[in-house]
Amino acid sequence: MTSYELRTIGRVESTLVERERAPKQGFEGAPDAWLVFAAELADALRDLAVGDEIWVLTWLDRAQRDVLSVRPRDDPRNPETGVFSTRSQDRPNPIGLHRVRVVGLDGLRVRVSDLEALDGTPILDIKPVLAGGR
Amino acid sequence: MTSYELRTIGRVESTLVERERAPKQGFEGAPDAWLVFAAELADALRDLAVGDEIWVLTWLDRAQRDVLSVRPRDDPRNPETGVFSTRSQDRPNPIGLHRVRVVGLDGLRVRVSDLEALDGTPILDIKPVLAGGR
Repeated sequence: MTSYELRTIGRVESTLVERERAPKQGFEGAPDAWLVFAAELADALRDLAVGDEIWVLTWLDRAQRDVLSVRPRDDPRNPETGVFSTRSQDRPNPIGLHRVRVVGLDGLRVRVSDLEALDGTPILDIKPVLAGGR
Repeated sequence: MTSYELRTIGRVESTLVERERAPKQGFEGAPDAWLVFAAELADALRDLAVGDEIWVLTWLDRAQRDVLSVRPRDDPRNPETGVFSTRSQDRPNPIGLHRVRVVGLDGLRVRVSDLEALDGTPILDIKPVLAGGR
């Protein structure tokens, strides 16, 4: 397998600290959180505005990478399912995909709504949500 | 900056070979393509079905990682814009985010609709699209 090197561009600051207590998806009652970026990224950030809907891509650094199937939502009643048909954190490349809204801006800090990522989670990328939720 | 190692889990097989000729988004006339997975991933794939709508995450290996602002859609009339407010391939972590539909299955090969990724692009992850396009 070829491998590539991801660089952490920032970190999540959140009141969520325990995986077991975090919502599984942002729309399931996750809190607002800060995205805190490295200073050298200021130019990439400069056009973000309050109200923007964005994709936040994170590295789920507390996930297990050797897991190929799970019982969805950690529910033992669910059948064992290949991870590519689930949103499990545990997967070969544990990249988190979060759709959130920008609710505040303060220099290198961006406040977003409904983020289920844990405190300290590395941020990989930010993209605008396109028409039709893409 | 902390860094993490991504592992290529498969490759795109597509008729698209030149970046200049590829559509910028899958819904802008991109062709069907194959996702070809490494044999050790069979268990992660096993529940994918024709008709599923999925997110394909790729590593855009021909992108430039030192670009922080661009003129969107390579149009010189557009103002220089921070890459986190654009879907430019060129960005610190060039992760491609593609919403496609499974249209065929053949062992470790998954046929999908409307994929703008170039032939040979490394695949990082597959996730189901949730309700509301998340």
